[in-house]
Amino acid sequence: MDRELAETGHLQALLSQLGAALDNYLNFTHPDALQSGVDWKRQLDRPLPERGEGIEAVNRALIDTLVAHASAIPNPGFSGYITTGGVTASTLALTAASVSSPQRYMLTAFNFVEELSLEWLSQMLGIGHLKGVYSSGGSVANLVALGGARQQAFEGIGIDPASEGMTGRGGQRPACLYASDQCHHTIQRAAGVLGLGRRSVRIIPSDGSGRMRVEALERALAEDRAEGRLPVAIVANAGTTNTGAIDPLRAMGELARAQGVWFHVDGAYGLPGILDPRKSVLYDGLELADSVIVDPHKWLGASVGVAATFVRDRDILMRAFTQEPADYLEGSMQRDEPERFDHSLDSFGIPYFDFGVELSAPCRGVVVWSMIREIGVEGFRQRIVRHNDMALELAEIARAHPQLELLLEPTLSICCFRFVDERIDDLNAFNQMLLRQLVRENRFMPTSTRVGEALAIRPCYIGARHAPEQVAGLVDEVVRLGNLLLQAGDSG
Amino acid sequence: MDRELAETGHLQALLSQLGAALDNYLNFTHPDALQSGVDWKRQLDRPLPERGEGIEAVNRALIDTLVAHASAIPNPGFSGYITTGGVTASTLALTAASVSSPQRYMLTAFNFVEELSLEWLSQMLGIGHLKGVYSSGGSVANLVALGGARQQAFEGIGIDPASEGMTGRGGQRPACLYASDQCHHTIQRAAGVLGLGRRSVRIIPSDGSGRMRVEALERALAEDRAEGRLPVAIVANAGTTNTGAIDPLRAMGELARAQGVWFHVDGAYGLPGILDPRKSVLYDGLELADSVIVDPHKWLGASVGVAATFVRDRDILMRAFTQEPADYLEGSMQRDEPERFDHSLDSFGIPYFDFGVELSAPCRGVVVWSMIREIGVEGFRQRIVRHNDMALELAEIARAHPQLELLLEPTLSICCFRFVDERIDDLNAFNQMLLRQLVRENRFMPTSTRVGEALAIRPCYIGARHAPEQVAGLVDEVVRLGNLLLQAGDSG
Repeated sequence: MDRELAETGHLQALLSQLGAALDNYLNFTHPDALQSGVDWKRQLDRPLPERGEGIEAVNRALIDTLVAHASAIPNPGFSGYITTGGVTASTLALTAASVSSPQRYMLTAFNFVEELSLEWLSQMLGIGHLKGVYSSGGSVANLVALGGARQQAFEGIGIDPASEGMTGRGGQRPACLYASDQCHHTIQRAAGVLGLGRRSVRIIPSDGSGRMRVEALERALAEDRAEGRLPVAIVANAGTTNTGAIDPLRAMGELARAQGVWFHVDGAYGLPGILDPRKSVLYDGLELADSVIVDPHKWLGASVGVAATFVRDRDILMRAFTQEPADYLEGSMQRDEPERFDHSLDSFGIPYFDFGVELSAPCRGVVVWSMIREIGVEGFRQRIVRHNDMALELAEIARAHPQLELLLEPTLSICCFRFVDERIDDLNAFNQMLLRQLVRENRFMPTSTRVGEALAIRPCYIGARHAPEQVAGLVDEVVRLGNLLLQAGDSG
Repeated sequence: MDRELAETGHLQALLSQLGAALDNYLNFTHPDALQSGVDWKRQLDRPLPERGEGIEAVNRALIDTLVAHASAIPNPGFSGYITTGGVTASTLALTAASVSSPQRYMLTAFNFVEELSLEWLSQMLGIGHLKGVYSSGGSVANLVALGGARQQAFEGIGIDPASEGMTGRGGQRPACLYASDQCHHTIQRAAGVLGLGRRSVRIIPSDGSGRMRVEALERALAEDRAEGRLPVAIVANAGTTNTGAIDPLRAMGELARAQGVWFHVDGAYGLPGILDPRKSVLYDGLELADSVIVDPHKWLGASVGVAATFVRDRDILMRAFTQEPADYLEGSMQRDEPERFDHSLDSFGIPYFDFGVELSAPCRGVVVWSMIREIGVEGFRQRIVRHNDMALELAEIARAHPQLELLLEPTLSICCFRFVDERIDDLNAFNQMLLRQLVRENRFMPTSTRVGEALAIRPCYIGARHAPEQVAGLVDEVVRLGNLLLQAGDSG
């Protein structure tokens, strides 16, 4: 049984070794993975091994080669995109579940916290009127929500799109979704996957703050109705990925309700912003939402792979996503719940696998549960206020500094600014160059976006490791590099 | 920074404590979670906490409450459905990635093994002509493959379904998918999600061994063609969930090719069976597949959340799943690859996020890489042969035993049998009762299925912990319980 032992045991010793390496990794004293790429590529690039090396060798390779040359994303200086490294509570929860509860279903303690954590999350984020289901990320979470919207819209014209499809008698009716020009592209993809088509997403212009122009939405709706198109959903951003803008939720939600159209709020990044008492007013109207998504793996600090869709009524998700009635799971003859539960295998519990696109799925609720138990609502509020403060502080510095320009007042924890100097001809090219140089140095790693025509340096503070000192550090480096580039005479 | 430290550090000490608890859990001396359910429910069922308890308390709760009352699935006696507990290599890989590489993209060692592991997997499983992408499970993996099929079929009639949708000019043309009555219901769900409709899946009858009747497939195709329907895909099982049957892949693949229809092979469970030299002939024709899926979290022993879709040409997945051209990722202005790579953030590498439904996604390749490095192809072959042997041994015992009936010769590692006795009136009700009693005892936990009209007790051996002694143990218990129930006079 030596091989079996190696395949299935020794967790304390192996996790302890790995934990030491991870603690060391979290000091971030190592160079960027690519800067040491020749070595690790040589070590990894092997043909398919016929014989195994055993678990000790694998753990050593994980520690010495993989972890040692891993991602820059968890680094406190990384403020690009909207992704971060998971917190310790998340890692512990994932590790525990991966061994002792490989599935979210059955009547176990892990299954219990799947629902409990969804309830906690909805209460904490001001959407207590909705019920949730986890999935692996914002893309799937939006897909699930819009699957519910598709179901409602087509049922409204007498068609069950999930069962009958849309290529039969419903097919003559082109569908429309409405989202602003700031919406995440995953909205288009979801429309594509659902058979509505990416082009069915009507792009509504936003104002100078990145908020949807509701009067344009109203016009588009009227136009499409007049031409016989079927409105499926109005999609609002509660925190755009580009600038953190929050759409006018109440106006959009009231319009949606008046028109009988599903109102979806994409809060993948920004929904936790509601915890900041200074910002909660921006979320006014959230109670009108038919569906809301949030990614605990963004601002709440879960390791990547944890998103949630919330809807008024999970029955509509059931109709949209059920795997045919009756034969719920392969080989299961116990379709009817037994008269009483004597064993954890007696029931699957809440049929999460019928509310989305996954059957087998890891336990994600335990991750959210562990994070909320660790720091409580108050801990999240403090973290979110701190991140919003960081964006505000950066905005103030940029406003005051002669060589910096604030491009947009921050809504949440994103701040868009750039380096300026009268000697620069092409500010976009210059800031692009500056940003590349900055990232090369591996200490401060924001990404960019556009604000109007301007290329912006765009830090987004969402990580548990994002602390106030990163603001001054980033500013100092941007100013230093900008002036170095100016001196080098290469002003784009 | 005490709170920050608690949120982000201490991994060695915490993982060591948790590892000890997990090693203890893997002794399986604890009662079933539900049998001790009153206590843990009381401990867990709390209102949303305003204040946090800190990471040490969370780890204790994970250990004392969650892990201690976790799932019966990883137990070596659990042989129900097609799910199992992950092996140690998988847990180590997940834990490492969750901290040091929260995303699969960027130019890091983790990103490198994402592709390397897909190549290894395809070579090991006889589908080296295909390229892969990971997702979270078989349902999504099938959805991705059938998204490719939808794309090819509609492009063939001049429509881009992902971009234009199918509710416009393509909408008049009902689509068809073909799968046997033994196919997994996730095929229907995928058709529903994709807007083809669950009802578009034409169910083709199978023979007494659970293999699709190809002549019936041929008739259905001809009929649909005559009536103007658009064939989208022929779906074959390489190991059905009910009995492990493998469809006649060559005959189906040749028919698909002759008809110009996408040929998809669902090998979620059974594809690794090709490693057993006695079984590889059953996979003849696999090279005709346009797409194949396999779930490393089934027979290969990964923790749940790791599936792979393989296709001839990832470009078709790109067209089916891209998030609109150009703006690949939020805030990214570096659409053009820089002239050279100086930093791991310079490129996303292979755009896996355009080949499926996820953008953010955890590293799954490292899990597969770690398992293959640990035991090699030879180790997997031994494990799979052992599991197939277990099903064969059970079949032999059942054939020889006067109180057991073998209901179907095993194809792979599933064996369908039942308890029989001339005194029993209703064999189905009796075996159902027997199975419930068996599972209550928490030592042997198969599930059931139907073979024809007969309710079968159906163990499925796929776990690294499934060892030969489980066969005799299960038989002894089934016979003992059967006779006990007979004595109790309750013969159904």
